[in-house]
Order: sequence, then C-alpha cells, then structure tokens
Amino acid sequence: MVTIAVDAMGGDFAPEAEVKGALECLADPRCDFAIALYGDAERIAPYLAGRADDGRLTVVHTTEIIDMHDSAMSALKTKKDSSMGRALEAHKAGDAQGFISAGNTGAVMAASTLILGRVPGVARPTIGTFMPTVRGWTLLVDAGANVDCKAHHLVQFAMMGSIYTELMRGVDRPSVGLLNVGEEDSKGGEVPVAAHRMLKEAAINFHGNVEGGDIFKGTVDVVVCDGFTGNVILKVAESVPGFLKATFRRVAEKSLLDKLRIGFAAGALRTAMKDWDYQDYGGVPLLGVNGVSIIGHGRSTPRAIKNMILKAKETIDRGVTGRIAQAMAAHTAPGS
Amino acid sequence: MVTIAVDAMGGDFAPEAEVKGALECLADPRCDFAIALYGDAERIAPYLAGRADDGRLTVVHTTEIIDMHDSAMSALKTKKDSSMGRALEAHKAGDAQGFISAGNTGAVMAASTLILGRVPGVARPTIGTFMPTVRGWTLLVDAGANVDCKAHHLVQFAMMGSIYTELMRGVDRPSVGLLNVGEEDSKGGEVPVAAHRMLKEAAINFHGNVEGGDIFKGTVDVVVCDGFTGNVILKVAESVPGFLKATFRRVAEKSLLDKLRIGFAAGALRTAMKDWDYQDYGGVPLLGVNGVSIIGHGRSTPRAIKNMILKAKETIDRGVTGRIAQAMAAHTAPGS
Repeated sequence: MVTIAVDAMGGDFAPEAEVKGALECLADPRCDFAIALYGDAERIAPYLAGRADDGRLTVVHTTEIIDMHDSAMSALKTKKDSSMGRALEAHKAGDAQGFISAGNTGAVMAASTLILGRVPGVARPTIGTFMPTVRGWTLLVDAGANVDCKAHHLVQFAMMGSIYTELMRGVDRPSVGLLNVGEEDSKGGEVPVAAHRMLKEAAINFHGNVEGGDIFKGTVDVVVCDGFTGNVILKVAESVPGFLKATFRRVAEKSLLDKLRIGFAAGALRTAMKDWDYQDYGGVPLLGVNGVSIIGHGRSTPRAIKNMILKAKETIDRGVTGRIAQAMAAHTAPGS
Repeated sequence: MVTIAVDAMGGDFAPEAEVKGALECLADPRCDFAIALYGDAERIAPYLAGRADDGRLTVVHTTEIIDMHDSAMSALKTKKDSSMGRALEAHKAGDAQGFISAGNTGAVMAASTLILGRVPGVARPTIGTFMPTVRGWTLLVDAGANVDCKAHHLVQFAMMGSIYTELMRGVDRPSVGLLNVGEEDSKGGEVPVAAHRMLKEAAINFHGNVEGGDIFKGTVDVVVCDGFTGNVILKVAESVPGFLKATFRRVAEKSLLDKLRIGFAAGALRTAMKDWDYQDYGGVPLLGVNGVSIIGHGRSTPRAIKNMILKAKETIDRGVTGRIAQAMAAHTAPGS
C-alpha cells in the first residue's frame, strides 16, 4: 500500500490542520492508501483521541520544527530531527512514496532537493502552478522556485511543465509559450532570446513567445518564465479579487443603484473566483526531484491538507517523476 | 507660447486620430498653447477642411513614416524625413517644448533618446505608468523600456519615478518600493539584492522591498522593477477585465439568478474599470531624456491623443525634466 509522509508541523495551523486534514483524507472514498504523520506525538495525540485504528495512520515522533524564520540550508544541518527532514528521509528510504508540507516554502524546496536528490539531468527543480484562464487552466512554471535563471533552466522548466500538464490534466501535447515582452523571436533580453532558440529544438510543442496578457487568455497550456517573474505574476493575480472588492465598494458609495449592483456583483465575483481558492487546488509540485514533493500554502486548512495529500497520490499514480526522468535522459541540455 | 510637436503619422488610426485629437485639444479650455502636426500634409488636409485658422495649429509636411515593422535604430538612419524624427528634431531645436507619438513604442523611445539626448548622469531613460490601486495610484517604473537591468539602473528609475510622482500627483516624498519576491532585504537574485542596498543610500523615501500583491494594494507610491517584469505586470493587469467578463459569462450560463447578477455586475465592472482606460490616462512619459516625450498606445483614439498632448504640456509646466537633471547632478550613481 502506498504511504504519503506528511510534515505535520509545517503550516501556520500545525499540527491541528495537518492531523485533521489527514483524517478527512482517510475518510474520503478516493483514499486507498496510508498516511504517516511526522511531528510532535504529544501535540498530535489530542486530535486523534477516540479514533478507531484501521492501520492506515501512523504517527512518527520528531522533536524539532523548521519554521518560517529558519534559513533553509542551515536549519537542515542543525535540526537533525525535524518533522520535515524525517518525513523526506522516509520517502527517500522507500517507507513513503510521496511527501507533503505546508511549511516554509524555501526550506521545503531545499530539503526536498537535498534529501530526495534531483532527477539525473535536471539542473534545478521547479514549481509549477495552474492558473485559471478564459479557456480553462494554464500551468505557470517556474512559479517562484528559481529567481535567477539561465536559458537552459527555462528549457527544462518547459519540459517538466509540459509532462506535468499532460499527465495531470490529460492534455495531449500541451502547447508551451515562453513569457516575453513581445511575440517576435528576437524580443526580450539575453536569456529569453537564447531560451527561445533552444525551445524550438526541445522535445515539446513550442508555441513561441507569449505576453503577460496571454496567461488569463489561456493562449497556451504552459507558460514558462523565471521564478522571479513567476512569483510576481502569481502575487499580482492573487491580489486581484481584493482589489476588485475594494474598487466595487468605492464605486458603491457613490450611488444607491451602484450599491445594489455591487451587492449582486459580489455574489458573482465569489462564484467566479472560486477557482482561485488555494484550499481547493491542493498545493504545488516540486518538479525534478527524485520523488513526489507537494508544497502547500502556510495558511493551509484541513481541507487544503487533504487535497495536498490526494494530489501527492495522484502525482505518484500518473508517473510524473518517471516521465521526467525519461525525458531528461533523452535530452542533452546545452550547458546543463 | 509653448508648442507641442505631434507625430501625426504614428498610431494605428493615423493621421485621422492625431488630427482630430489635436483639434479637440485646441478646443479644450485648458489649451493655452500651440500644436504642430508633423506628417503627410495631403493626408492631413481633409481633416482640417473648413477650420478657421487661429494661428495655434501648424502642419509640417514630412514624407516618411516609421511604422510598426521598422527596427527602431535602422529606421532612424534610413528614414531621414519621418514624421517622428522631424517632430523630435523640432523639439530639440526649441521650436517645440514637448513631443507626443502613438507610434512604434520601441522607435519612439530610441528616437527620443537619440535625438533629444539623455539628461546628464542618466544611464537609461525609463517609462513609468500609473496603475490603479485600492488606495489610489501607484507608479510602476520601469514599465517596459529596459528589459535587462543592472542595480544602478533600478536606482535611477526609482529617483526619476519619485520625482514624476511628486510633481504630477502632488505626493510629498513619495514612498518607493523595490519589487521583489519577499520583504526581507536579502530576498531575490543578484540584481534586486544589490539594488536594495543602493536604494537605502539614495535620496528617495525608500520603503524597502514590496511584492507583486502590493501593487494593487497601493502599499507604496512608486514600485520599481526591471522593464521585463514591468511589461509583464502591465499586460497581466490589462487582461484582468477581459478575464473577468469571460468568467462572469461562464458563471451566468449556469443559472438565471447568476445571469441577473452578472448583468448588474457588468455595469459595476465598467465603472470600476474606467480608471484602466488608456484613452483617459493619456500616454506615458519617457523619463530621463532632455525634453518631454509622451508615448501613446498604438490604438490611440482622438480622445487619447488630446489627453497625451495635455499631459505633455502638464509635464513641461511642472518642470519634471529640470528636477530630474537636478537630482542626477546631486547623485553619483556607482557604476553608472
């Protein structure tokens, strides 16, 4: 039986959210696997009180926590018995087949890369996240893992993002666009120009350059960019609903008719914006490590944790890591 | 009397939009200045038919056009009698005190820099654009002029953006944020980290790092970033209304109540989004050149052209270029 290792001390509401999320997951009809919670057994116990043991939940006691203030690399060296590190070591040893954490994102990325190792050929693991578009979804990759990127990094992000989109969304030969400041091949600075040339030769369905406006339009299935730009885009997009609500409110102050309109609009906005809810999308994958590592929002609720665990299982079932390894073996990245 | 030189052959609807916009401007009570139209006199003439001459409108005949397909630098060399080049030369010679164009943005930037020259000390002229926020407006600078930037370029963008915001929006000591992937000083790649250090020493009201979500929140008055990121942000933001409309429409298909709501929401959305209308904001300034150069959207309508001309005059009146020159003289940019 597959086991998912859960860093139970990671998020802002740990361990309560993690334990409750794990229990909700076990109660879900889709859950045909086991869960191992890594964390402070004493703090975890109260949330398990009275539960009948069906053999699918294990608690592994750990004494240390890597928190938001820790520098990723030094925390891994000094905190040898952390919930995050121990859960990843269990995955590495084969005691678990996947891992999730809602902890310090930088630390989760560093620990996953260090402990699980990279898929041979992968220069840098990357994070991809699906964004809602007019036509459905677009994977934005890199969504914040790597701030300074070279052209061959972008090519690998494109390959991994393409595989993830194909396997997780069932898109055949996903179209891949390079985020740039214009559609012409020669647009952009040094890195985008070089990446454009290399992407034309890569084993992906390369659409060419796309611009910022193409993300919400859903022009392509995968949008590739460096992690600095990806982080900024994601945070701009996440701030749109708040901006709209405030703007609607300001408009509404001016007239009664507008006040009525806004009341109606708010309901529509809520429905329309449901897709953006991080609780539902269940975390983002770190692509390119030797295993399955799903990273969640610090504010993850039990529902978000449940969805992260289910996503880890789905990522295993669909063989994402294996397909990335195959593609990397076939690909000789210049300069990588 | 101040004269504004207009590239009458620049935009997608040239020269009709340019001529009509100039006439609308002259009819505006705020217009206490003259306008010189540079372009094909024969194509301009029909739009002037029957107009009583009050001495404030001149047409200067030119025979060539720099269009969207032209490479900026080569067009300037080969097309010696272009409407864009001739209008800028008139500004340089003192026959006009400001210049506007809705033509090829790359060409307008290159031609303005080449013909007007840079303010002493400015390494690279930059474009700033005001974005609507929860609290009012934030200047995004660089909004697309310079895709590859070094730290000292960002510092100069910050200084020029700060001056522009102070003089054009009447904000005392505008707060300036460096766009980054986290609030901590050490966040980001090489360039942001170095820029953060240098911004702390610069003669501006430096707030520290801000993130993508802070733009719409209006956390600071000026957000500084490289032009690649700035271009992407702007285009993502511009695509939001279209995305929302499509999403609203999809939601509305599902129920009659939602259909009603959407109908109301559309009205509110239109009111709320009025701020985004490029026709009203009247073009963006190229900051750091020796003069006043306002760049408009290719699709500029007569109303947009009118507002661009008025903005050029306002930029002259508020002494933006002079203040930038003063600040640059006082600032010794390391590495510039």
